[in-house]
Formats: sequence, structure tokens, C-alpha cells
Amino acid sequence: MTTRMRGEIAEQPAALRATLDALLPRTAEVAAVAGDTRQLLFIARGTSDNAAVYGRYLIEARAGRMASMAAPSIATTYRRRLDLRGVLAVGLSQSGRTEEIVETLQWARDCGARTVAVTNGGEGSPLAQAADLALCTLAGEEKAVPATKTYTTQLAALAVLALGLGADVDADDLRRVPDAVERLIADPGDLDAVVEGLADKPGVVVSGRGMAFSTALELALKLKEACYLHAMGLSYADLLHGPIAVVDADTPAILVAAGEGPTLAGTVALARRVTEAGASAFGVGGGAELAGASTAALNGPDLPEWVAPMGLIVPGQLLTEALARRLGIDPDAPRGLNKVTQTD
Amino acid sequence: MTTRMRGEIAEQPAALRATLDALLPRTAEVAAVAGDTRQLLFIARGTSDNAAVYGRYLIEARAGRMASMAAPSIATTYRRRLDLRGVLAVGLSQSGRTEEIVETLQWARDCGARTVAVTNGGEGSPLAQAADLALCTLAGEEKAVPATKTYTTQLAALAVLALGLGADVDADDLRRVPDAVERLIADPGDLDAVVEGLADKPGVVVSGRGMAFSTALELALKLKEACYLHAMGLSYADLLHGPIAVVDADTPAILVAAGEGPTLAGTVALARRVTEAGASAFGVGGGAELAGASTAALNGPDLPEWVAPMGLIVPGQLLTEALARRLGIDPDAPRGLNKVTQTD
Repeated sequence: MTTRMRGEIAEQPAALRATLDALLPRTAEVAAVAGDTRQLLFIARGTSDNAAVYGRYLIEARAGRMASMAAPSIATTYRRRLDLRGVLAVGLSQSGRTEEIVETLQWARDCGARTVAVTNGGEGSPLAQAADLALCTLAGEEKAVPATKTYTTQLAALAVLALGLGADVDADDLRRVPDAVERLIADPGDLDAVVEGLADKPGVVVSGRGMAFSTALELALKLKEACYLHAMGLSYADLLHGPIAVVDADTPAILVAAGEGPTLAGTVALARRVTEAGASAFGVGGGAELAGASTAALNGPDLPEWVAPMGLIVPGQLLTEALARRLGIDPDAPRGLNKVTQTD
Repeated sequence: MTTRMRGEIAEQPAALRATLDALLPRTAEVAAVAGDTRQLLFIARGTSDNAAVYGRYLIEARAGRMASMAAPSIATTYRRRLDLRGVLAVGLSQSGRTEEIVETLQWARDCGARTVAVTNGGEGSPLAQAADLALCTLAGEEKAVPATKTYTTQLAALAVLALGLGADVDADDLRRVPDAVERLIADPGDLDAVVEGLADKPGVVVSGRGMAFSTALELALKLKEACYLHAMGLSYADLLHGPIAVVDADTPAILVAAGEGPTLAGTVALARRVTEAGASAFGVGGGAELAGASTAALNGPDLPEWVAPMGLIVPGQLLTEALARRLGIDPDAPRGLNKVTQTD
């Protein structure tokens, strides 16, 4: 059986190339809209919120500007105005039609923020229309409920945003991403072992830190929505403040890291701690070091840390799709979910 | 068997009275340190981070200032400086000795922020020493690993912080909290039914929104660390973006709301959706409306929404303690955890 989700995972190299071709020439527009704003405020839910977490770490760690996540309920439920002058608000929505996100971006503009939209819904979508600048991803129509290509192209748009804000990174690294994703789809590592290691488990902890934290959150969301797994996504620092207690023979850990960078050593140490406690640790990325400390491992991309998240999620997407089928679930249409989510 | 955790839960009315007596007279000091800062940045991990989430919603919704959560790794792992002039940084740590939090508060000060500490570790603790102003809670020594009285007194300190920042609330509401907590300890509602409803389940979703979101996160953390339950804490808006798929006959939902306020109606609607899907919904607070839509319910405090979280967690603490014993776990000393957590 070939699922739509599997097909859309495979479309990511092309979707990333198209999105980068369209957006990389637009960094000057980003700089113009950002102007002298001092900080960013991301507005998103679900998968888009996980993409925003990448944007948040990337902007703070590499562009040196404060960045944080909005609480949409302040706008839509408590209806409180804040002083958002000097703030660049960035709304993300796959469809560009989630009313809560559109309304919160409009609220931010009314409160004095400058606004950017990141969406696959096109220039005509309500979110793009509400923003000073729209960075439209070119992922094509996504039909499976679990977002894949709209997520990785959102990450690419956020990388372009960071370049426009003067991040101290090499833009050429971005051009290496589509090929790296292609290689991961062809060879994701020991997928069968990880699928079997999760197939009879009720839950799993998914952890990463810094730039890779977003990947841990996104993989946990995928495993919840398409495999009904009790997947708990956590920074590894937060994991050690209590939740580590849940990791046991019935609760493996999936640990995510780029192949380089300052969070790799801590992730490897965590894998050792998990296996020494008698639980399974499944590595994602992290090179030979993390794979060596893990029970079984999925490959990561051969990319610098700042662009690695665009590849790191790919073996996790393949894992989700394969595990769902193994569990008898149609990953294209999990129970209780629609493609466009409306929340107040 | 009487556990230390049960004894410390019962000490909360006295701990709250002592803390409020000490801190309520200090709102002018808060105002002086805050000065003309335009926004708050909370620095915390674990239970203290859940307390900070309350502070974040309270400050934005009622004091009208931007508030957000710091990513400590920017300071301690990526070692990147940000421009934090105009920021009031608030570090929270039960012990006042978690090095990552102390180091991140020092980083914030070095980046131009003014600083406040909220700790039960006393004026001499490293965190208090690192701050321009220390709001010390008077919870007394806490010996059980799962934090209870240090958490609720942190919430009280954050309420005092909000008053110092000019929140549009009635300070007298705070004086009603200790008695309300006392009543909840005496009559937490249908505890036995909820304990039995969770005793054979591997996981649970815990959800709330706005002011009550912090309670959902904290109850999920308690159930993870002391009951080894796969407890997933989520805003109910985020829950609808995917994770709702995990709720089924084997995965109940615990839904938390104050007895009044703009998030109550959505929480009641979510309880109906969960029970109509054939799963159990356990209400916490939310008055007769939420209890009526739930499979079984725990009582909430008869308090205005802005102070309700100080009471809402109490039946959840009692649930955690009782469920741990029911499962044969000593809640005072869960596996893998120490009282003072050190992370880099």
C-alpha cells in the first residue's frame, strides 16, 4: 500500500527546491519589513507551532534577536491589547485559513507590530492578506492529514527569515538541504528496528535540545496524531526535571540531535543513561556517536546544525508512516482530525 | 501510610498565608525594580516553569505587558548575547540552587535586563543573590520529590509580582486563597473514582487553557514523575491540532478550568466531545457545568479566575499522591529523581 503521506514525504526535495528558489531572493524584503524591530513573536498552532520553535531558536542563537511564542488566547479569548511596537510578529499556518491564527496576527498588527505570514495557502489566503509580507511556501497541495512537506518548507521559509534578519550563517548551506533530504528518504537507517521497537509500546518520550528541540516536538506530534502513541515531546533539560521517571522497559526514548553542535554531547549522554536504566534509546541523527550509544538508530542529514532540522524530521516522518501501517492505522486520515483545524 | 507528599499538600494553607503575609507588603519594591521595563522574561524548568506559565498569562491578560519564557540553552549552550534592555527577567527555582537557572538569570542581567528571583531557598540562595529583588516564598522545607507547597507559593509570589506591575485585579482576592485551599483538601470531590479511572491506564491527556493551562501542565508533570503515567499536558487549542487523536477508551482526558472566565465554555465543550467519543473525561474545577459534562469530577476552588490556579492544582496533587500509592509507588521518592535537579 502506498499512502498519500508516503508520497508527500517523497515530494520534499522538490518542494524545498521550489520554496528556496522563490524565497531566497526575498531577504531584502524581510529586512525592509523588519526594519528596526527588536524582537520576534511567533503565532502558530500544532505543526506550524513546532516549526516556529525552530524559528525561535534560530533567530535567538544566530540572529541575536529576542524571539518568543505568542499565547493566542490573550488576543482571542482574553481580548487584551499589549504594546507590540518594535515587535515583528510572524504568523504560520499551513492553510493560511486557521481563523485563530489570522485573528491573532491582526491583533498583533493592531497592537503596533509589523507582520509576516508564512503559509502554503498562497498570497490570496487570509493569513497572507493580513500580513505586511507573505513568505509563501511552494509545497503544493498536501492531502494527508499529518503535515510533512508543508512543515519542512515552513522551516526553509524561517531560515530565509533569519537570513533577512542578518543571521551569522552561510546561506549556501540551505542549498544543500534538498539533496540531503533525498538521501535520507533513500536511506533512513534502521527503520524496521525502530518500528518494531515501538509497535507494542503505549508511549514514548521524544527529546532534543536547542535547534533540535523543534524536531522532537514535531516527531512527538506526528506519533500522537497518526499512531495514537502517548508521545511526550520534551527538551532534554526539562526531561531531567521529572519526566525522566516515565522512561522504563515499556517506555523507550527517541533522542534527536544534529551531527554537530553544542547539544550533541548531552544527547549522547542521555542515550547512555536511558539504556543503562534498561530502556531502549532510539537515536535520530547525531552521527556515529549517538548511533553508537543507542539501541537502534535512524540517520540524520550531513548538514550544519542550523539547517539540520529540515532533514532531521524526515526519518521521523518515515517512521510515523511505517508505524501507523504496522498498527493498522491509515496515516492519511487519523481519527478525529481534519486537514484545516479551526480553534477559537 | 502517610507520605511526606500528603503532609506537604496539607501544609499549603499555612505556607500560602505566610508567603502572602511576607510578600504582599512588597509590591512597591516590585514596581521600583520593574521601573519602565516593557516586558517580562521568565526563566525556569520543571514545576517552576509551570508556575512561570501562570505568571506569563496573568501578566499579559491582567497587567497588559508582554511576557514570555526564556530558552536557557541560548545562554548556557549557545552562549549568545541578546539585547535585553527594557526586560524584567524573573528566575524561578524551588531550591534557588539549580545552576542552569542561576546562570541564565546572570546572563539576562549581563544582557541589560533587570532581575527578580522567586525561590523557596531564601535570601542567601545563589538565585536570590543574583537578582535585583528576591521574592522568597515561605513554604518551609519540602522533602518529597514532587513539589507541592513550593509550587503554590510560587504562584502566590507571581500574583504579588502582577500586583506590583499594576494588574487590574483586586488584591483582596488573594487573601481568600488559603481558606479555599483548606476546603479543597477537606473535600477534593470524587477522588476515588478518578484514581480508579486512571489506575489501569498507560496514559492520559491533561488540558486547560489560558490561566488554567499552567495547572494542566503541572498536573501532567506530577502524574509523570510520581505515577509514571504517560501524561500529556496541552492547551485545549493545541489538543485539537492533532493530539486529540490519542484520546480513546484507554486514554482518558483530565480537563481543568476555573469556575468562571472565558475558557470555561470551551473546556465544557471539550469534555462533551471526549465522552461522546467513548473516552472518559475527568473534570477538575469548572463548577457544576464542567462536572456535569464529565465522567467523574474533582472540585475546584470558589475563587476568581486569576487566583484560581493556586487552588486548582490541589485536587490534582491529592490525585497524584493517591494514585501513586494505588500503583505501589512511593510518591516521596520516584525513581530516577533527586530533589535538586542540575542541568547544564
